[in-house]
Amino acid sequence: MAEGATLYLHLDHRAVHDAKVACDRLFGRGAFLGEIIWAPGNGGRGARGFSVTHQTILLYARAAGERGQVVYNAADPMLREPFAETSLAMHFKHRDEDGRLYRERVLGGKAYRYYADEGRRLGSVWTDIPGMVANTPLRREGTGYPTQKPERLLERIVRASSAPGATVADLMCGSGTTLVAAARLGRRFVGGDRSQLAFATARERLDREGIAYSVLEVPEALRDGAEP
Amino acid sequence: MAEGATLYLHLDHRAVHDAKVACDRLFGRGAFLGEIIWAPGNGGRGARGFSVTHQTILLYARAAGERGQVVYNAADPMLREPFAETSLAMHFKHRDEDGRLYRERVLGGKAYRYYADEGRRLGSVWTDIPGMVANTPLRREGTGYPTQKPERLLERIVRASSAPGATVADLMCGSGTTLVAAARLGRRFVGGDRSQLAFATARERLDREGIAYSVLEVPEALRDGAEP
Repeated sequence: MAEGATLYLHLDHRAVHDAKVACDRLFGRGAFLGEIIWAPGNGGRGARGFSVTHQTILLYARAAGERGQVVYNAADPMLREPFAETSLAMHFKHRDEDGRLYRERVLGGKAYRYYADEGRRLGSVWTDIPGMVANTPLRREGTGYPTQKPERLLERIVRASSAPGATVADLMCGSGTTLVAAARLGRRFVGGDRSQLAFATARERLDREGIAYSVLEVPEALRDGAEP
Repeated sequence: MAEGATLYLHLDHRAVHDAKVACDRLFGRGAFLGEIIWAPGNGGRGARGFSVTHQTILLYARAAGERGQVVYNAADPMLREPFAETSLAMHFKHRDEDGRLYRERVLGGKAYRYYADEGRRLGSVWTDIPGMVANTPLRREGTGYPTQKPERLLERIVRASSAPGATVADLMCGSGTTLVAAARLGRRFVGGDRSQLAFATARERLDREGIAYSVLEVPEALRDGAEP
């Protein structure tokens, strides 16, 4: 992992816990930066108890262990959410000269002003990004690739942990959503996948979006058209 | 674990993954029933990346591994949530003679009718139960116990996985929220804790609620008033 880079690893509840233990061994326990819960909001409900309707994204960064610099663009509007209703009602009692509602807190002798309309930093539970399935507004994004993620999810991740000009790598890039999001946001990208379908889908999608790229190396297994 | 019983284990992101691996070893991987994400909705946002604003509850049941009977009271109104807006708009197009909106699906040659006003089974991400901190409506519940959970959280769990008359056990019962919820819902309860503060808080609370109980055994360590 490069200095300043954050690794996002997306898994479901059947695999995430073992993966966390394995990543702790690989990167060191201190490199664990936290986790995000993505609730796409759709999906069936099983008959036999609670259906698990979320997936987990584990975050690791070398700098987390060393108390070093972690890239996190908290001011990005996509990384903010409205203050809780109770908080708004209890704490935001002042208005500035432009009529904007704010709260003031004094911490360590220094006054901090929080504006209601700027919202608070996004927490770890993301319920505002619907999944691809059965959701009409997202159909135009669809490539038919089985595990395709919505662009908004990857856009938020790219915005959160990289600056324009940085390189975003997705080495299991599937249909290429991460690469498209990175390119649109002015990041450089590196994609990889061992699946022929992913390779073809991602290339076609980048071409369709008019995004320039070069193919560095095509392994033998992907040249003969066989799905490894 | 008793036949038909479900174990709920509540932890945060720093501990939950290791606990999952340990529980898999203890109960068998097949006994893992799923997990619930509880997002209390309040709490500070750290300066250094995504603040983790949720906690995880792991679910295990002997019967899960054996494909046996798992108690899950899905029809309980507290175990249901409104259908997603997109689903309501797309699928609920019929009205019955009482004017109730419904959707009909034919699965395996059999027609199933779903009523919009009954909602769908609750998913695994619970954002509708605020935590205890800085939340005025919950202050009357407060005992001052440091890790106290809201009664609504425990009430939902007790309703989900037990029938009236069943026994609910909380062997790290803290301030006794589980015991109070169980008693109110007509369940029998067994509580335990190795902390003097928990023991005193839970007893006082049960007394205040007028809930009858008997003390089976007070270990030596809890008799002398020392916090172990």
